[in-house]
Amino acid sequence: MERVYNFAPGPSTLPLPVLEKVQKELLNCNGTGMSVMEMSHRSKMYLDIFNQVKADFKAVMGIPDNYHILFMQGGATGMFAAVPMNLLDGGKADYVDSGNFAHNAIVEAQKYGEVNVAGSSRDDAYTYIPDYTLSPDAKYVHITTNNTIYGTRYTSIPDTGDIPLVADMSSNILSEVYDVSRFGLIYAGAQKNIAPAGLVIAIVRDDLLGHAMPITPKVLDFKKMVDGDSMLNTPNCFGIYVAGLVFKWLLDLGGVSVMEEINKKKAAMIYDFLDNSKLFKGTAVPEFRSRTNVTFVTGDKDLDAAFVKEAAEQGLVNLKGHRIVGGMRASIYNAMPVEGVEALVAFMKQFEAAHQ
Amino acid sequence: MERVYNFAPGPSTLPLPVLEKVQKELLNCNGTGMSVMEMSHRSKMYLDIFNQVKADFKAVMGIPDNYHILFMQGGATGMFAAVPMNLLDGGKADYVDSGNFAHNAIVEAQKYGEVNVAGSSRDDAYTYIPDYTLSPDAKYVHITTNNTIYGTRYTSIPDTGDIPLVADMSSNILSEVYDVSRFGLIYAGAQKNIAPAGLVIAIVRDDLLGHAMPITPKVLDFKKMVDGDSMLNTPNCFGIYVAGLVFKWLLDLGGVSVMEEINKKKAAMIYDFLDNSKLFKGTAVPEFRSRTNVTFVTGDKDLDAAFVKEAAEQGLVNLKGHRIVGGMRASIYNAMPVEGVEALVAFMKQFEAAHQ
Repeated sequence: MERVYNFAPGPSTLPLPVLEKVQKELLNCNGTGMSVMEMSHRSKMYLDIFNQVKADFKAVMGIPDNYHILFMQGGATGMFAAVPMNLLDGGKADYVDSGNFAHNAIVEAQKYGEVNVAGSSRDDAYTYIPDYTLSPDAKYVHITTNNTIYGTRYTSIPDTGDIPLVADMSSNILSEVYDVSRFGLIYAGAQKNIAPAGLVIAIVRDDLLGHAMPITPKVLDFKKMVDGDSMLNTPNCFGIYVAGLVFKWLLDLGGVSVMEEINKKKAAMIYDFLDNSKLFKGTAVPEFRSRTNVTFVTGDKDLDAAFVKEAAEQGLVNLKGHRIVGGMRASIYNAMPVEGVEALVAFMKQFEAAHQ
Repeated sequence: MERVYNFAPGPSTLPLPVLEKVQKELLNCNGTGMSVMEMSHRSKMYLDIFNQVKADFKAVMGIPDNYHILFMQGGATGMFAAVPMNLLDGGKADYVDSGNFAHNAIVEAQKYGEVNVAGSSRDDAYTYIPDYTLSPDAKYVHITTNNTIYGTRYTSIPDTGDIPLVADMSSNILSEVYDVSRFGLIYAGAQKNIAPAGLVIAIVRDDLLGHAMPITPKVLDFKKMVDGDSMLNTPNCFGIYVAGLVFKWLLDLGGVSVMEEINKKKAAMIYDFLDNSKLFKGTAVPEFRSRTNVTFVTGDKDLDAAFVKEAAEQGLVNLKGHRIVGGMRASIYNAMPVEGVEALVAFMKQFEAAHQ
């Protein structure tokens, strides 16, 4: 079998040129006589890679100088604990409950202090980004910029004034241009839009460091991680290397602004088809539609299952919706080429014609 | 440049047949049309890999049925917090201070409760495994079976009776046969003897689950991780896959008992040479010599530096000792072939002849 079009929500498809480079260098990276996986994280040969990855991430994301880049482990789920441990500082925090991961972040944060649910669309199956009322005295406001499972995204970023805005960007980081200076902390599990699973990238503003609770594990303490340049312990060296290749690939493409236009086009192709379909229907409220995860149904579970199965036979795989919501979901992150989306829409048309 | 012999202490050399298989499957793993890095962790194609990795680890390590295998993140350093958070249960713990990582484990555990340092060789530059006096009422006893930086190892495992023995085996897991049933918990950062950095493997006895402190982050809670079969959040899927290839490679070789004999032979080749050398001297007390990390000096810093440099020119790289101790260190984990050790000893002889 050739390569398939993989619409998995994460871990998800990676850019083919990146995979080809990983493959080429796998036994001997940069003429060192060893794989990048075998390099000591403190060796010059690895630090050269590491520092370039940081520089390229700073460039591609447009990160101001008063922010630190951290490579963490433990997934966004680990960050759900790390955020309150580092930022709650004896106060309370506002959380917007816009999806399952947002909800998990709230439950985890409640272990460490007072959490105010500033808004929630939980009772409406998270089909939209809820309205929210922010507290004037919160230590931070936590949002989830894109909700992978439900296919929704913030189309405008909350204005939190002087209160630091914290964003879980796991499922849409680098898919559209964000003004980093509007956030106090951004974090993302790498496995959707950056690199293989097992790596978290965080961007933290300098003034937010140094307030960790005494019981914060060292590996989740932002200040200690900054002081150790993410090498307090051995980082996920391979994941960081792949992330670097993805950043280079993005920069070569023209950066996030160019990628954003491609992503708009990809998403529009599917949504336009859905809005004119007699068989398929998008499930997210249009105003809040995600550009990275497109959720849809036929309204008939058996037909949904048939669609997923037949699509897979055509090399369009992992279109099944999340087990919580059912139906279908096409995750079309940066690495999904336009051709993959064209093939998907063509198949949807064909399926509709066969079942109308 | 061809492949070098890489004596790095971790991340460290991986078996060449494993790397070759990773390379071969990188764009298309098991005919799925995608890289293992791109597979959803909940897909059948990945779960088939995952379950086989667990079965092979159970077989190669000889893990009894009343133990659970966990794939964690955050390194051994993360485990330094997770262990007391999960096992201290309002009591105190005994720690044996046999090296820098053992010491770091103590410092981290002190955040969560009472720690008794049962023995220490810190004042003697950790050149041996210290005597220890265990508390009768400890919740657990923590040891570090092999001390990477100093080149020492426990040559006999403490008998802790009914008190659970917890072992950080990061630098010698699978290098010799251990009776798992003597331990309550074993954990290891994967980057020395198992897989690329970014993965921790833990083996926890069933009766130790369920006592985590309320402030334990979900991703560090052993019970929750067991209940989620290490998929509470997205695991390091690629690292687990590589670990599985390493387990298969070990099983094909005949298992850990065969590997142990090879490791004994490799270590003896270097130690025998050191004991008869007029130039080089081993730094660990002979009774406690490590089989995975061999530390030595010439007694002259400039000569040490010249050795490291000239060795690298011969394709014998990363022989510099840890920055804390200086001198030289040859890390000869499972993946270091006998030929690599032969080449090292031959070069040591040559260097000695040139500098005597």
